[in-house]
Amino acid sequence: MKTYLDCIPCFVQQALRVGRLSTEDEKEIKNILDNVGSLIKDIPMESSPPEIAMYVYSKIKKITGNPDPFRKDKINHIKKAQKLYPHMKEILEESDDRLFTAVRLAIAGNIIDLGTAKTFNIEEDILKSLHQELTINDYQSFKKQIHNSKNILYLGDNSGEAVFDKLLIEEIKKPVTFVVREKPVINDITKQEALEIGIDKVAEVISSGTSAPGTVLSTCTDEFLEIFYNADMIISKGQGNYEALSEVDAPIFFLLKAKCHVIADNIGVDEGSLLLMEKK
Amino acid sequence: MKTYLDCIPCFVQQALRVGRLSTEDEKEIKNILDNVGSLIKDIPMESSPPEIAMYVYSKIKKITGNPDPFRKDKINHIKKAQKLYPHMKEILEESDDRLFTAVRLAIAGNIIDLGTAKTFNIEEDILKSLHQELTINDYQSFKKQIHNSKNILYLGDNSGEAVFDKLLIEEIKKPVTFVVREKPVINDITKQEALEIGIDKVAEVISSGTSAPGTVLSTCTDEFLEIFYNADMIISKGQGNYEALSEVDAPIFFLLKAKCHVIADNIGVDEGSLLLMEKK
Repeated sequence: MKTYLDCIPCFVQQALRVGRLSTEDEKEIKNILDNVGSLIKDIPMESSPPEIAMYVYSKIKKITGNPDPFRKDKINHIKKAQKLYPHMKEILEESDDRLFTAVRLAIAGNIIDLGTAKTFNIEEDILKSLHQELTINDYQSFKKQIHNSKNILYLGDNSGEAVFDKLLIEEIKKPVTFVVREKPVINDITKQEALEIGIDKVAEVISSGTSAPGTVLSTCTDEFLEIFYNADMIISKGQGNYEALSEVDAPIFFLLKAKCHVIADNIGVDEGSLLLMEKK
Repeated sequence: MKTYLDCIPCFVQQALRVGRLSTEDEKEIKNILDNVGSLIKDIPMESSPPEIAMYVYSKIKKITGNPDPFRKDKINHIKKAQKLYPHMKEILEESDDRLFTAVRLAIAGNIIDLGTAKTFNIEEDILKSLHQELTINDYQSFKKQIHNSKNILYLGDNSGEAVFDKLLIEEIKKPVTFVVREKPVINDITKQEALEIGIDKVAEVISSGTSAPGTVLSTCTDEFLEIFYNADMIISKGQGNYEALSEVDAPIFFLLKAKCHVIADNIGVDEGSLLLMEKK
């Protein structure tokens, strides 16, 4: 997905938010905004938003010297998600179709996103999402593809969300490789959080090599690209991964909540829609 | 009021909105955003938001060559407000305190603002505002000051809103000088719209000389400044005028709706509050 004009004020808004998390010095935050503002003219609109975000966030990192301003939030989100875990397991036990329920939980977990401007309440919003119909629902094809796949690549997104990804991976009952970002960016999952959650107990954990908040293939390692292109099936979580991969020819299923009007318009659904969508 | 860090993404958002109104050429809009982005580093945070907005909007004007992109909106807002006028007159006729009701109508009219990100529905929102309590209500002092004043300066704000200002001016029953912006900026009122509304029939219409979306005194003419400093009472409409004058020592009453969290925090009220507030 290309970058839309609407993404530009959103980048500036994100810069302000990260600035405030990184430092309390107003002048330093203003300096971040100055730098991100000057960077707008260099934004190639044909690049995807996570590709641009990578430059924006690395600029902010350089200025503040804070490599992981969202670390506290990530720990907090993981804790909250883990608190819900036993209840989610119960829901799963009682459901008629465990795999489908796990898919819905994994999509619900995608609300835990600090990139978009929306605020969220993990407990409330996850439970609410479980009662919301999927606007695009390619579950039958998803199920069939799992059945036919020998190796499944699972692209992680936000850290707290991965608690629910773990739950889905347990239901897939096939060898799964779980992919994390190489370096911290927003509240996206890195190897550190994956190990804290214990994803390594249900899947092999690898890094894509990127420090973008999405699997931008041009920034991934050759090693990862080989795995990516040889996967029988790719489960892609979240907006950033959708934005990076929406035009890539691969057997991808996108699981996400469309959290801003730009991505919702791009897909052709209403903002707030929950999606299990096969790449056509 | 100084410019807050939160104003900066808002300026970029405004630039996008005006860009879209001025042209359909995506590249030209991107060029606007590039320019406004590069301008961030030159923003002196001690200046008031309308002072900064003046530079932002004049930059956009230069790029697009469109001196008045909101002209259509202004005409449309005036028409809609005028449609409500007979009903508002009725409300006035039936009220116990005509002046207070007129004040409430004039504040309600302040919703017609294209500067802030909020959308509005003129008919619905004005009627709703009439049922909302004023969060700060210095009406007794306002009434007394009118009684004691020989010459009253009334600083106009948005164009559609001025239809309701006219109604209040009719109730003041004192000589009123109504102040417009020198050049079009956002949907603020200029001489052209003031004459279209017929404000010249109830007040003397003068320009402050500014092209900022607020009465930024350093950008006003000497002629206006003399009138300003000699006024017995100044009625200041809207956010832009508040932002420009909140620290100026003059007998000002601010009538406005606090439409963004920045101004609401500055005043110490909730966003959305309606205010009739004497300058202390």
